[in-house]
Amino acid sequence: MFVQDAWYVACTPDEIDAKPLGRTVCGHALALFRDAQGRAAAVEDFCPHRGAPLSLGFVRDGRLVCGYHGLEMGADGRVCAMPCQRVQGFPTIRSFPVVERYGFIWVWPGRAEHADEAKIPRFDWLASPDWAYGGGLYHIDCDYRLMIDNLMDLTHETYVHASSIGQPEIEESVPATRVDGDTVITSRHMQGIQAPPFWAAALRANDLADDVPCDRWQICRFTPPSHVMIEVGVAHAGHGGYDADPRYKASSIVVDFITPETETTHWYFWGMARNFKPGDAELTASIREGQRRIFGEDREMLERQQRNISAQPQRKLLGLNIDAGGVQSRKIIDRLIAAERQAPENLRSA
Amino acid sequence: MFVQDAWYVACTPDEIDAKPLGRTVCGHALALFRDAQGRAAAVEDFCPHRGAPLSLGFVRDGRLVCGYHGLEMGADGRVCAMPCQRVQGFPTIRSFPVVERYGFIWVWPGRAEHADEAKIPRFDWLASPDWAYGGGLYHIDCDYRLMIDNLMDLTHETYVHASSIGQPEIEESVPATRVDGDTVITSRHMQGIQAPPFWAAALRANDLADDVPCDRWQICRFTPPSHVMIEVGVAHAGHGGYDADPRYKASSIVVDFITPETETTHWYFWGMARNFKPGDAELTASIREGQRRIFGEDREMLERQQRNISAQPQRKLLGLNIDAGGVQSRKIIDRLIAAERQAPENLRSA
Amino acid sequence: MFVQDAWYVACTPDEIDAKPLGRTVCGHALALFRDAQGRAAAVEDFCPHRGAPLSLGFVRDGRLVCGYHGLEMGADGRVCAMPCQRVQGFPTIRSFPVVERYGFIWVWPGRAEHADEAKIPRFDWLASPDWAYGGGLYHIDCDYRLMIDNLMDLTHETYVHASSIGQPEIEESVPATRVDGDTVITSRHMQGIQAPPFWAAALRANDLADDVPCDRWQICRFTPPSHVMIEVGVAHAGHGGYDADPRYKASSIVVDFITPETETTHWYFWGMARNFKPGDAELTASIREGQRRIFGEDREMLERQQRNISAQPQRKLLGLNIDAGGVQSRKIIDRLIAAERQAPENLRSA
Repeated sequence: MFVQDAWYVACTPDEIDAKPLGRTVCGHALALFRDAQGRAAAVEDFCPHRGAPLSLGFVRDGRLVCGYHGLEMGADGRVCAMPCQRVQGFPTIRSFPVVERYGFIWVWPGRAEHADEAKIPRFDWLASPDWAYGGGLYHIDCDYRLMIDNLMDLTHETYVHASSIGQPEIEESVPATRVDGDTVITSRHMQGIQAPPFWAAALRANDLADDVPCDRWQICRFTPPSHVMIEVGVAHAGHGGYDADPRYKASSIVVDFITPETETTHWYFWGMARNFKPGDAELTASIREGQRRIFGEDREMLERQQRNISAQPQRKLLGLNIDAGGVQSRKIIDRLIAAERQAPENLRSA
Repeated sequence: MFVQDAWYVACTPDEIDAKPLGRTVCGHALALFRDAQGRAAAVEDFCPHRGAPLSLGFVRDGRLVCGYHGLEMGADGRVCAMPCQRVQGFPTIRSFPVVERYGFIWVWPGRAEHADEAKIPRFDWLASPDWAYGGGLYHIDCDYRLMIDNLMDLTHETYVHASSIGQPEIEESVPATRVDGDTVITSRHMQGIQAPPFWAAALRANDLADDVPCDRWQICRFTPPSHVMIEVGVAHAGHGGYDADPRYKASSIVVDFITPETETTHWYFWGMARNFKPGDAELTASIREGQRRIFGEDREMLERQQRNISAQPQRKLLGLNIDAGGVQSRKIIDRLIAAERQAPENLRSA
Repeated sequence: MFVQDAWYVACTPDEIDAKPLGRTVCGHALALFRDAQGRAAAVEDFCPHRGAPLSLGFVRDGRLVCGYHGLEMGADGRVCAMPCQRVQGFPTIRSFPVVERYGFIWVWPGRAEHADEAKIPRFDWLASPDWAYGGGLYHIDCDYRLMIDNLMDLTHETYVHASSIGQPEIEESVPATRVDGDTVITSRHMQGIQAPPFWAAALRANDLADDVPCDRWQICRFTPPSHVMIEVGVAHAGHGGYDADPRYKASSIVVDFITPETETTHWYFWGMARNFKPGDAELTASIREGQRRIFGEDREMLERQQRNISAQPQRKLLGLNIDAGGVQSRKIIDRLIAAERQAPENLRSA
């Protein structure tokens, strides 16, 4: 069950640099490539001639050429040409709205006429020179909603990430969750704690002492269909915590674009944006590697959780206060899916 | 189809030494660990909070701590604690009767109120200083009953184990099978034969000539739910064979604890107990390695047999005199399963 | 959907030299071996005793001995013997007509009474000393008919084999397809072209200049159930092309025996027969390696095409003029399958 009328991150630009990319988004097998104007495009990964995956082909003059018999597909899903063939009567395949923004290629798997670029949330810091960004991609064998649960309840850091960002104080402070329209915010604030290893390093990278009492915060923000941005940071205690002057804190934004592939698998675009030392490429690389390792720790837990749930699908799970972020996020997803189903054009086709 | 009201070997103690163990027994996914008193325990491998496998967590003060969000599970399946939570109302998960005996952890997957320790068969030699034991564990992709068939008809040694324990004389002597209550005994005796390589080595290890005519025996004993103990040995001919004075023979007991995992997979705990040179650890290791190799030879045959049978499930197999041990064992299993189904509490829940 | 009443290549003789071979042909799991007279034989790969695969056993005196308990199976599917057993009443398993010819073992998976050796097409050049043959075997995860399509439309060479046998001129010349009874012939002729790398090498191997304008031809011939022979070659331009005197051309026959395993997998026996320098074993080996590499290029495309089609089975594909060879071949296959279903003995059993 996915929201279809929404923008999802399909890939990063480097993934379509050298050749087309085949990737499944919300159950749609897509071939992603760049057209003659250099604009990213997505069409069904299915050649209308004999069903070969178009992504196995190549791009020539902005057309996606099937690697089997040379059919040339346009970014609009219309066949442009094929050797020795008249292609006017060839069936058109589906093309998908695509936008390139913030260093990502976004795709809209739902009804094209509803695809409005303005519906891509604003992530200005992803495009600002005052910020640096580093990230990566994991393919994870679980329902994308288990990943949303994971990110909207950071209590798990104490257990899953005990050696890096976890610390007992996280689980000792109850988070607060509130819903604001289609946004869910879960906040947790810890006072006068010791910075855990990851944050101690961030303080040092920020030229701040790492051995003094700190305030720490985690503010998780879900926006549909499945984005979770987390403001995280520490400040030297007594300077206002989250609101402290930049001189006293190290903070960043954990970026999570979660793109369903099938009902039980997803693509997880993870990263971190920071607004200190943005030009320090070595620091960016080092943070990325730390994050890659940390987020890899979630992987086994999530995939094994999925297998457990799939084996006993009838079994009820608990929804505790710490789970409120995930529970509220799922409610919004469910509401949006229900609304899509009620849409007149969908009722007609049902 | 498994007998549920029975003791099965779930694991060996070393498997739960350092961390909990996840293992499926008769279709039940279990998390095995030791409680505060050091007693082995088994609960469902499913955290009642969000469905994570508890076996991915760790043990603290005898409680199984979920590695995702820190729920603490007791050996009785009741939630003891969880950070920042009141757990009184949390659902209890199923716990399973467990006994540690003879160097194995035994579990009772069926109705707990029927779990009587006295129903574990006596294997005194597994606990006696006069005996030495060495063994191992294989995971095998076939119905556990195919393994019982295998062990209750050693004719296959001539073919599957031609280079170690097999010899033509095995198939030339017809075994006798008798049923004694829930026990099935298949015996084969060979007179005046040459000891095959494995037994020649055992004679030498026992300080006996290995190049003289011998009597050889194999006495396979099935007891429910799926244990097969095989008395095996050779004696210098003319001294009474199986009943010969220990000075003239080398003998041991092949130990087979067969634990169903799913309908078509099982855990196979194999080993050998011997009552000569029990203190010779090097000999124990050498026998274990020989046995590991020999029992590995059965594996491909059994797994391919399973695939053949699964592909043609309607096909009838033969039940020859050599198959009587397996056939009778299956009858006992079927009878016990039918009896369980007729139990009033099961009829109620049906 | 397979034609069952037909001869398929099951294996090459070397595959049953040392031990029996298990191979599935048109859904039938076969054990292939040689009987006491050295004749190739095929029986079900299922021991009537306990269902073990007979192909895991060995051959003794022309009998297939089960590797589990020693049952001895004859080439006719009757049990010959078993240690300590009277086998007269044992069930017979199915045996399949087998013929060894042209360096291949052919099997008839259908009704034995219809198996007529004369129905094996004549491939005299495979048995002639004037010709040399080299080939190999691939297991491919796609419907065998996708491979027929592939071979009956060589337009794909331009794309899939761009670096070896492909060249733009192929797709620029429209092929002609005609049906002659149960045979489909698709021909393509190119005039005054440059020989591509594979053929340039063949010209040199044939002591001919490789840098002069050439005529090139490809004549694909489908015969049921799934054989595709392709006459291919180049001649120096101006000497009659396909009909040129051997002094001016290099030509050969691409041999494709396509044997369905399951609905979506097949065995692909590929090779090349040539009538120049037949005694040059080094040349044979070198051509075989080139062909192995080239035919490996089709593999990913075909397997990914199958996955695409399986994911969207309702989707219609195009049948263009270049596809006529495959389309006509499938029509013949469909007609033969329908005829088999109408056969009185099949109607009876339905």
